[in-house]
Amino acid sequence: MPLSDDTRAKLKTVSTATLCTGLYKRGLRSQFVQDVRPLDPEVETMVGEAYTLRTIPAREDLNPITVFQDRAHPQRKAIEECPPGAVLVVDSRKDPRAASAGAILVTRLMTRGAAGIVTDGGFRDAPEIARLGFPAFHVRPTAPTNLTHHQAIEIGVPIGCGDAPVFPGDVIVGDGDGVVVIPAALADEIAEEAVEMTAFEDFVIEEVRGGRSILGLYPPTDPQAKEDFAAWRAARGR
Amino acid sequence: MPLSDDTRAKLKTVSTATLCTGLYKRGLRSQFVQDVRPLDPEVETMVGEAYTLRTIPAREDLNPITVFQDRAHPQRKAIEECPPGAVLVVDSRKDPRAASAGAILVTRLMTRGAAGIVTDGGFRDAPEIARLGFPAFHVRPTAPTNLTHHQAIEIGVPIGCGDAPVFPGDVIVGDGDGVVVIPAALADEIAEEAVEMTAFEDFVIEEVRGGRSILGLYPPTDPQAKEDFAAWRAARGR
Amino acid sequence: MPLSDDTRAKLKTVSTATLCTGLYKRGLRSQFVQDVRPLDPEVETMVGEAYTLRTIPAREDLNPITVFQDRAHPQRKAIEECPPGAVLVVDSRKDPRAASAGAILVTRLMTRGAAGIVTDGGFRDAPEIARLGFPAFHVRPTAPTNLTHHQAIEIGVPIGCGDAPVFPGDVIVGDGDGVVVIPAALADEIAEEAVEMTAFEDFVIEEVRGGRSILGLYPPTDPQAKEDFAAWRAARGR
Amino acid sequence: MPLSDDTRAKLKTVSTATLCTGLYKRGLRSQFVQDVRPLDPEVETMVGEAYTLRTIPAREDLNPITVFQDRAHPQRKAIEECPPGAVLVVDSRKDPRAASAGAILVTRLMTRGAAGIVTDGGFRDAPEIARLGFPAFHVRPTAPTNLTHHQAIEIGVPIGCGDAPVFPGDVIVGDGDGVVVIPAALADEIAEEAVEMTAFEDFVIEEVRGGRSILGLYPPTDPQAKEDFAAWRAARGR
Amino acid sequence: MPLSDDTRAKLKTVSTATLCTGLYKRGLRSQFVQDVRPLDPEVETMVGEAYTLRTIPAREDLNPITVFQDRAHPQRKAIEECPPGAVLVVDSRKDPRAASAGAILVTRLMTRGAAGIVTDGGFRDAPEIARLGFPAFHVRPTAPTNLTHHQAIEIGVPIGCGDAPVFPGDVIVGDGDGVVVIPAALADEIAEEAVEMTAFEDFVIEEVRGGRSILGLYPPTDPQAKEDFAAWRAARGR
Amino acid sequence: MPLSDDTRAKLKTVSTATLCTGLYKRGLRSQFVQDVRPLDPEVETMVGEAYTLRTIPAREDLNPITVFQDRAHPQRKAIEECPPGAVLVVDSRKDPRAASAGAILVTRLMTRGAAGIVTDGGFRDAPEIARLGFPAFHVRPTAPTNLTHHQAIEIGVPIGCGDAPVFPGDVIVGDGDGVVVIPAALADEIAEEAVEMTAFEDFVIEEVRGGRSILGLYPPTDPQAKEDFAAWRAARGR
Repeated sequence: MPLSDDTRAKLKTVSTATLCTGLYKRGLRSQFVQDVRPLDPEVETMVGEAYTLRTIPAREDLNPITVFQDRAHPQRKAIEECPPGAVLVVDSRKDPRAASAGAILVTRLMTRGAAGIVTDGGFRDAPEIARLGFPAFHVRPTAPTNLTHHQAIEIGVPIGCGDAPVFPGDVIVGDGDGVVVIPAALADEIAEEAVEMTAFEDFVIEEVRGGRSILGLYPPTDPQAKEDFAAWRAARGR
Repeated sequence: MPLSDDTRAKLKTVSTATLCTGLYKRGLRSQFVQDVRPLDPEVETMVGEAYTLRTIPAREDLNPITVFQDRAHPQRKAIEECPPGAVLVVDSRKDPRAASAGAILVTRLMTRGAAGIVTDGGFRDAPEIARLGFPAFHVRPTAPTNLTHHQAIEIGVPIGCGDAPVFPGDVIVGDGDGVVVIPAALADEIAEEAVEMTAFEDFVIEEVRGGRSILGLYPPTDPQAKEDFAAWRAARGR
Repeated sequence: MPLSDDTRAKLKTVSTATLCTGLYKRGLRSQFVQDVRPLDPEVETMVGEAYTLRTIPAREDLNPITVFQDRAHPQRKAIEECPPGAVLVVDSRKDPRAASAGAILVTRLMTRGAAGIVTDGGFRDAPEIARLGFPAFHVRPTAPTNLTHHQAIEIGVPIGCGDAPVFPGDVIVGDGDGVVVIPAALADEIAEEAVEMTAFEDFVIEEVRGGRSILGLYPPTDPQAKEDFAAWRAARGR
Repeated sequence: MPLSDDTRAKLKTVSTATLCTGLYKRGLRSQFVQDVRPLDPEVETMVGEAYTLRTIPAREDLNPITVFQDRAHPQRKAIEECPPGAVLVVDSRKDPRAASAGAILVTRLMTRGAAGIVTDGGFRDAPEIARLGFPAFHVRPTAPTNLTHHQAIEIGVPIGCGDAPVFPGDVIVGDGDGVVVIPAALADEIAEEAVEMTAFEDFVIEEVRGGRSILGLYPPTDPQAKEDFAAWRAARGR
Repeated sequence: MPLSDDTRAKLKTVSTATLCTGLYKRGLRSQFVQDVRPLDPEVETMVGEAYTLRTIPAREDLNPITVFQDRAHPQRKAIEECPPGAVLVVDSRKDPRAASAGAILVTRLMTRGAAGIVTDGGFRDAPEIARLGFPAFHVRPTAPTNLTHHQAIEIGVPIGCGDAPVFPGDVIVGDGDGVVVIPAALADEIAEEAVEMTAFEDFVIEEVRGGRSILGLYPPTDPQAKEDFAAWRAARGR
Repeated sequence: MPLSDDTRAKLKTVSTATLCTGLYKRGLRSQFVQDVRPLDPEVETMVGEAYTLRTIPAREDLNPITVFQDRAHPQRKAIEECPPGAVLVVDSRKDPRAASAGAILVTRLMTRGAAGIVTDGGFRDAPEIARLGFPAFHVRPTAPTNLTHHQAIEIGVPIGCGDAPVFPGDVIVGDGDGVVVIPAALADEIAEEAVEMTAFEDFVIEEVRGGRSILGLYPPTDPQAKEDFAAWRAARGR
């Protein structure tokens, strides 16, 4: 079930916070990638299907610097084969002691049209990556080459990332709060619902800024709140 | 013992670092809220009396999304009842895996005249909150709704926040270094002393910028240092 | 083996990421100071020889505020004796619960001509230090005075900092990714090699920005890549 | 809804593992007290209603050794008022750096007829407590007096213990795997179900010891497995 | 390269400490499974080839209790297909909050002739497993069913376990110190060398018990030490 | 101020819990070595003056296995020079990923008459060490040679161990609860006081076993409690 243009467009307009609430309502409590943040806090919202890369702890004899001479090395292969519009999600076992990637690989990923990159480890060349205007999320900057602690081992398999389960094709959304994983089969309905919730939250925050209490308004247990929202939507065409 | 306007004004002009030294001199070593930071690093110094909210780990059956239909839900009640000028301090058990609050609630708190909010968990909608111009301190951004891991359970009781003890009415001060908790009974004398210390530190840093050694100056074991400081104060009317 | 002006100048032009790769090639995998970051992300690259300060956990009776009246207190002595051009590296046992230093001491260190300061703890007055234009790296801001948890005990001995071994005289380099420790005996050759690697990486990133694949280019297993690089160097005089 | 003798008796015969499965089937995934263990691994299964004690971080000026001269001190009061048959559950904020209690208090609790004690901190005099034959669960031994880091503050309120929510009256069961919290309203049905599950698991383990595959047997998707279990129950009168 | 009977027999007679030294001499520093211990401290040394099972964080909708009705569920399949003489190594992502397996599955694994089981999570029914006389290693006991936090996803792939890389077929050895992973290609030579080292260490400890200094003896830089060892070996036929 | 035979003898009869209370009364809250335990839980109480060994993170090129051919290597030197009756305290930077020592070195230390050994890392050959009847305390067993992560660097300097400050000559006491560090100058008075407290606690626990309430008894705010204690002492000659 590929991500439709319509759903992608909708997801670009909502927040990870709103999406987490939609997931929560469906009993999904573990879809937020814990402890990752955007390198560029001003970057636009990232949306794309998960393309996964898995790592294991590096064994010294298998990871000389020469391994990258192999064009089939999974890290390099993942960068070159991640589909346009997809998000490369790297399972770095929550270990930022060595980099998951650096500026050259992330730039290549960007020029190939990927939607973004997420690791539960760290990136090297972090200041350069932050200036690319490309959505990239990690735990913290880290200079050592990935070979120091990570051996990329497998592409396109289910992984964990920041304690969240990620299946290839799941829809990944990232913003200033972090990254959320939407199961592929739920993406359309969650996106639809999130657009509605966002309209309501925009209305609420306007009201609250104007001095209104949240009681009866958020959630709208007071019938007046529902009427006011309907009027607000009509006035704004949302 | 309510916080006086005079003490509040004084505390606005000093740093948490200086206050921690004042507390240290009195044998209080655990009053700094560990590992929290302002969402907006440029925000003005936060000062207010502690209004506390306590949470426990969320039990799934007690935390459907519908609980917020109850106007007496402690999280919502805390937002609506926190006194103007007070700081809402949330004991989130140092767990930022789910949000302690989001932009709507924090905006409401701000419009109600609170002085700020602190949690040893995280906020959702963190970029929005950062733009409010309202002092808010947390561990890190986090998108999941509070119900995912936190059940707000009690208001107005002594709590822990970031390993610091917080009693309702304690004076909370926050700046770029973080947040400190001043026992209510000590607020006046600590504020007074901190203003004096700040004058001295301003003098010292001027001298140091001019090339003077810290030896004999900081602390002023050299009599000349004391004389110079007296002259400096006289010249500046401090 | 003092750090030569030539090597210092070279190290100013390369990144910690590139240096870590050079160390990795020599079997050194533990030279990155884990989990520290610059207070000012825009600061220039820090380069200098390590001048070390070691701390132990503070014993309450040995650390009244009056200890600083002793001009020989190791923390103050380290600030006043760190050689110009050196980096003060503080072993704070990875404990940021209390400050390793504050704005006054860091300003003094700067005016004395030191190249920077690193701690695996935290600084107080962090916003002020961030504005100094002086390279300073730590884990996070922290307001409590160092006496709360740290007793400075020894200067000029081998230490650990962020899980990296640091010997006095090792060459310390810091940038937006963090801080790396180069064994003194390797500094010249690593600097030389890093300058070469940087030229190549600058070439690669230009190519990648232009749409070229990393396969065959990075590393340059394709002979064409080597030729292109030679042409690029010739054209730029690098 | 007090714990009935029948349910108490049933719970004495089942394991925390089996109970966790019963809770899991009802959507409760957070009822296991993480990272606590019995001081005496051979102790009998602990069953009782939760009687709760909450702590906050200790403030030095409020916790001189003389506080225990106050008979109303919450820690002492909790020991003297915990009902016979109940389990004293202490929220120590997952901090074992100082003791939650020692041998004298635990012995007093035992002689008063309590069913056991649980803390997500540690006990002092741990070897003595281990020899009492009284169910006691903690993170690890720790010699410092509770006043060093804990201030007992409140009795009989909902708390967290090892990341599990605990409401007064919840049914606490502990064995060699650790401690589980059963919501009071579910205790009867969970106990009933667990007794049935235990009979089935006893049958299964006998079969498995005899060389039978778990496929089709556990769970019993093979009709023969159900028949064999029925025969086994009949033969043993269970 | 299957594990030979001869190498298996040799490995049964040496310690994980000695094996780690052999690996260290070959530049392998990450082969010890960190933070796992035997459930039964008296169990015999475990030796076998790694048969691997990988997990990801559990997604709630994919992990109802009914999943075990599927005979192809990877956890159950791993138990039923692990070859005799092999060690089942489970990558539980260092998360002991829910069980990796319980007594029924471990008993089945034992009766099928496996050599042992290792997880970097925990086991439920830990006291029962400890009494089986079957080598089992974990972080700590934990009662919740694996479905609570773990979804078994893949068998027979390279994994991480306790920060060690584990490839299928690597030789796993466990004793009272924990578990070490020997790359398959090195097993014969490491075993051979470890037997020699063990003889020497047995000699040394006898000498040390008799009051001899370790200087010159361990390592045997004193020629007399080598002579004495030769005599000792001759006398004992080792 | 060497440890007197009288004080040593007294300390053998009291618990680390009682000693921590004595230290607490003097404002010393950080003298307990956090998170270490005896390898043999049945071992007798350890008492001795601290003889310290400091480590830093291991740099690979400085730590080939051949370093032990140097008789002056600090780890070996510490074992051979630790005075009889002293406790070797190793600052392993709270890192148990590699061993601080193994059975051969600990046996040598024992035969040389040392009183015990403590590390905030781990020991290899832990089961063997546990059988020596020699007091040894650590975090957990760990098989890798110390060279993997630790470089012994200095003997006889102040160190941290498990977050406690340790000065050479401080008096180290260890039992089933763990290890406490008594500043040398306080050892006599703390020992004296602890013997008195122990007599009182022995009286109290007898009373409590007999059914007496702790209120008024512990502490003895009820005059009757003091009288009863006086009678108890008289009867037992304590």
